[in-house]
Amino acid sequence: MVRKQHDPRDRFVVILARPESVENIGLAARAMKNTGFGNLRIVGRSKVEIACPRTAVHAKDILREASFYADLASATADLNVVFASTAKPRQNFFVLPLDEAVSKMFTFPPDARIGLLFGNERTGLTSAELASSNFRWTIPQASRQPSYNLAAAVLITLFEVFRRLTMGEEIIGPSPFFAGREGHEIPLPRSDQEQCIRLILQKLEEREFIHPTNRCHTTQMLHDLLGRLAMTDRDRKLLLAVFSHAGENGERKRPA
Amino acid sequence: MVRKQHDPRDRFVVILARPESVENIGLAARAMKNTGFGNLRIVGRSKVEIACPRTAVHAKDILREASFYADLASATADLNVVFASTAKPRQNFFVLPLDEAVSKMFTFPPDARIGLLFGNERTGLTSAELASSNFRWTIPQASRQPSYNLAAAVLITLFEVFRRLTMGEEIIGPSPFFAGREGHEIPLPRSDQEQCIRLILQKLEEREFIHPTNRCHTTQMLHDLLGRLAMTDRDRKLLLAVFSHAGENGERKRPA
Repeated sequence: MVRKQHDPRDRFVVILARPESVENIGLAARAMKNTGFGNLRIVGRSKVEIACPRTAVHAKDILREASFYADLASATADLNVVFASTAKPRQNFFVLPLDEAVSKMFTFPPDARIGLLFGNERTGLTSAELASSNFRWTIPQASRQPSYNLAAAVLITLFEVFRRLTMGEEIIGPSPFFAGREGHEIPLPRSDQEQCIRLILQKLEEREFIHPTNRCHTTQMLHDLLGRLAMTDRDRKLLLAVFSHAGENGERKRPA
Repeated sequence: MVRKQHDPRDRFVVILARPESVENIGLAARAMKNTGFGNLRIVGRSKVEIACPRTAVHAKDILREASFYADLASATADLNVVFASTAKPRQNFFVLPLDEAVSKMFTFPPDARIGLLFGNERTGLTSAELASSNFRWTIPQASRQPSYNLAAAVLITLFEVFRRLTMGEEIIGPSPFFAGREGHEIPLPRSDQEQCIRLILQKLEEREFIHPTNRCHTTQMLHDLLGRLAMTDRDRKLLLAVFSHAGENGERKRPA
């Protein structure tokens, strides 16, 4: 296929976290080829390990050009918004149905790079991996069991994005929500978002808002909340100001 | 899952024509389970051959209850409308994109039984098999190669029908087109439709409208055209009257 210079699919990046089956990686690559997506990142596997699965019919170029990462943080560092797939409801993370998640993707400016994160076949994404995302989505299904397998989840998701793109959804562009935000509308790279979240969590630890008995629960809820902001530079400045300020007037004793 | 007494999915029947890979049959069953469809028919394979594929996770009941047929005509005989999947354009058959095909499915009355027909992995559906359908659909894809594999085509199609059903599409019911047709609106069972088409073709052979040099082409075009009628009892009566009448006044020499 001859791709347009600025293919609206180029900003999407498929990320497979710790995929187990090489056949599934091949099927995911084939699903990408079918729907015209080209950027694949794989976490926790080496290029050698996944060489030439028989399932990657006509999609070997995608595997050849895939990038490999030791951890999820580096795989998402340069992306502006990360959406994570989950089959089950997650206690501390808000989960969107696929339709709404794809609609949300198209509310971001066209140059925001969007990660689509899929977990391991057996375990799905861990809570720590979910915390590396801004939004979570789930694919509606008829029965609780079985969940969609990895390749099926990739295929249905990419087909839905592809379907919307061919419906001209990307032309609609950013939502009115962003209209007045003068160039601040692109979310920060994930690495900056995560650094900011770490700083906030650290402040809250210092103030003992977070403490050993609530740490896991509260941290996850904050990752969910702050993730959903899809934090811009302006948001970060405000958040850091708020949390520094509250710290000064709150926990610390005022001079008498 | 506890199914409702009249699940709107019950009227859909998935038909796999001459599937080669037992793994693909298992994956198709799993896709059916994920999306809540239960009726599977398999043409050209025996129940013994497809026992227990490892891919049919949590969907073995669908394979256990599947029906097996020696030929496609018997597999579609009792259905009212058959939609056939094709990856490539077909010269003499009109092909709808998936979206429109699913919209069309929902124009038929709720008690019309609908077949979703998928061909062999390597060959797809033959022209003769396509002629056993009323409508053809294709799943949009980004590049000409590779086409969606069998399990992917089943999954995307069922997910689209499922998605529309959960959007309440089935509640909209038959289109206004059928509104005034007083109980004649259900297409005949495919076996009756096919018998009628055979009679028409026979008439046209007798009149040498169809002859050896145009037979293949003309027959396929007529299958396409008459298929798309989704022929009701009233249509059949009219068609047979028209073709019998034209025969009497046309080819046969009038008595002097």
